[in-house]
Amino acid sequence: MQYGRIYNFSAGPSMLPEPVLEEIQAELLNYRGSGMCVMEMSHRSKVFQTIVDEAEADLRTLLGIPDNYKVLFIQGGATLQFSMIPMNLMKNGVADYIVTGSWSDKAYKEALKFGEINLLASSKDKNYSYIPDVSNLPISENADYVYICENETIHGTTYQALPNTKGKVLVSDQSSMFLSKPCNVADYGLIFAGVQKNVGPAGMAIVIIREDLIDPDLDPKTPTYLRYNIFSENGSMYNTPNCWAIYVCGKVFKHLLNLGGLDAMQKINEDKAAILYEFLDNSKMFKGTVEKKDRSVMNVPFVTESKELDAEVVAATKTAGFDNLKGHRSVGGLRASIYNAMPKEGVEALVNFLKDFEENYGK
Amino acid sequence: MQYGRIYNFSAGPSMLPEPVLEEIQAELLNYRGSGMCVMEMSHRSKVFQTIVDEAEADLRTLLGIPDNYKVLFIQGGATLQFSMIPMNLMKNGVADYIVTGSWSDKAYKEALKFGEINLLASSKDKNYSYIPDVSNLPISENADYVYICENETIHGTTYQALPNTKGKVLVSDQSSMFLSKPCNVADYGLIFAGVQKNVGPAGMAIVIIREDLIDPDLDPKTPTYLRYNIFSENGSMYNTPNCWAIYVCGKVFKHLLNLGGLDAMQKINEDKAAILYEFLDNSKMFKGTVEKKDRSVMNVPFVTESKELDAEVVAATKTAGFDNLKGHRSVGGLRASIYNAMPKEGVEALVNFLKDFEENYGK
Repeated sequence: MQYGRIYNFSAGPSMLPEPVLEEIQAELLNYRGSGMCVMEMSHRSKVFQTIVDEAEADLRTLLGIPDNYKVLFIQGGATLQFSMIPMNLMKNGVADYIVTGSWSDKAYKEALKFGEINLLASSKDKNYSYIPDVSNLPISENADYVYICENETIHGTTYQALPNTKGKVLVSDQSSMFLSKPCNVADYGLIFAGVQKNVGPAGMAIVIIREDLIDPDLDPKTPTYLRYNIFSENGSMYNTPNCWAIYVCGKVFKHLLNLGGLDAMQKINEDKAAILYEFLDNSKMFKGTVEKKDRSVMNVPFVTESKELDAEVVAATKTAGFDNLKGHRSVGGLRASIYNAMPKEGVEALVNFLKDFEENYGK
Repeated sequence: MQYGRIYNFSAGPSMLPEPVLEEIQAELLNYRGSGMCVMEMSHRSKVFQTIVDEAEADLRTLLGIPDNYKVLFIQGGATLQFSMIPMNLMKNGVADYIVTGSWSDKAYKEALKFGEINLLASSKDKNYSYIPDVSNLPISENADYVYICENETIHGTTYQALPNTKGKVLVSDQSSMFLSKPCNVADYGLIFAGVQKNVGPAGMAIVIIREDLIDPDLDPKTPTYLRYNIFSENGSMYNTPNCWAIYVCGKVFKHLLNLGGLDAMQKINEDKAAILYEFLDNSKMFKGTVEKKDRSVMNVPFVTESKELDAEVVAATKTAGFDNLKGHRSVGGLRASIYNAMPKEGVEALVNFLKDFEENYGK
């Protein structure tokens, strides 16, 4: 870390790779001899089209996206996807949802507006601290899709295996784990991610959708901006996209390729998470809130024995120069989000700090 | 212009003030001692909340926004507003539209999905080269609102006086003229602008709406992201906003205040436009496409006698180091967008170039 930068454990928006920020800074007033900043470029210009094309191509390389999947760049975050998915994917008017935390619950509640939505399984009984058994759920016979949030940012859980959808289309919110490890895109009908957690700046979602699921023949009242076919037919530029987010994400994709792609990222991320979980498993003061088998490699919530001590630790982390370690109010305690861009040194520094805090507490 | 930057006449995204870009560059790796880039900040953090609050306060100062108007930051551009406006503002299910170019036509066509939409007036008969007489139109008795696009980016027209709405709510798309001159917000029920033309980077619209028009009691199928009340109740942060766009727009607002506010901008912009229009009015080769009384101060379309010569001129402007002067295909010829951030020297340089071209042509 240079430039007086700190280890920022925010759940999103969150850290970006320092080399990416340095490149952006160098290009800010004049992008590669174009005479302008990327923010000033016509989205219809050749120079910007090259940026979009490279971003998409690099993402396709990273994830090995099959040719029969489209990549769409859409504003409005995951929240807009919670509406767009049922509005675009429902033919029978039926969908199955698995609710494992705040984000899948929001998606489920939004979907209720648009059809017959079945709650297939939920882990609400234990404050979403685990992933239910999804190997043999009662999938609806005419379900248009089965919906999951593959990594719950707030509750810190992640699926170790995808649900058995019994042949139905799988839709996954990958916002807080996108590009953290390899992913077999062909297992899904639709993957989406708000980019502000693991990839880029807030203000855009990336949607990867199997072509045959893109239906132009929707309810005529569907707003133009909410139709996947409009994005697909216009290369995500029916209207002006979030050009800056595409530019920054494109740089992050190249950075990940340079690091060795998603296999390499998975190893780096698992190593980082292991350092923190090992500490938590051996601590007398701190403990993780999630069942071991379902722990997220990206978001690590943990607590002490009391809210007062939690608050004391959070205050001390700030004094020590860390930021955004306060847990979400629905879980309490602390949460360390350790996405792709968090250096291993950041996790080590946090663990050292927590160890010291525990050893010296009350002395 | 420094750093090898060029005069970029793009209709949007378009030029940003150089001092604003310099500040962004300086803050890119560490915003004011926060230890992080604005792109990396939690939108729930104090440091980011201060950025949002200052941006809104400065915008209120610039436009003199009355206290009973809310300022909303919404992703999805003007295109999403074309749907949100009828979905949120219709109580009687009736609205009146005035169509003066491509953008009001798009808004009109989108609104047709949502209610009884009356085409009050249109200038399509002369390829949208003028603004119709709007002093005494047959406003619908139960119209929920009257809609205009106050400055048509493609056709280069602007309203000199607002329509007489006979007491009905006026809704205005100000995208390509936002903050180019003073505006009496109380004359409107809702003003919106995609920020990528005159204010900031693409990926956000600003909506200024009179509080009593914000209705929480909409059709239950209205997507959460498309409800003004959700934005209003949550300070535009129900979900993660386009934080970067808010940051950049905030800097532009401060820059405009430093230049003397919107009275000063109006004078600067009218002076710039006068230089170009005076040239066009005296040229034998070039002529403006819009009726003089309705000319835009922001977007100046002009043509030669033939498409071949138009293309020759466009090519020559590129060689001379200008960019994005090709006119939209629906008007042809050339178009110079000369928003707030285009320096007077840029317009002078363009006029000098066009004069030279004309004088030397065929010699």
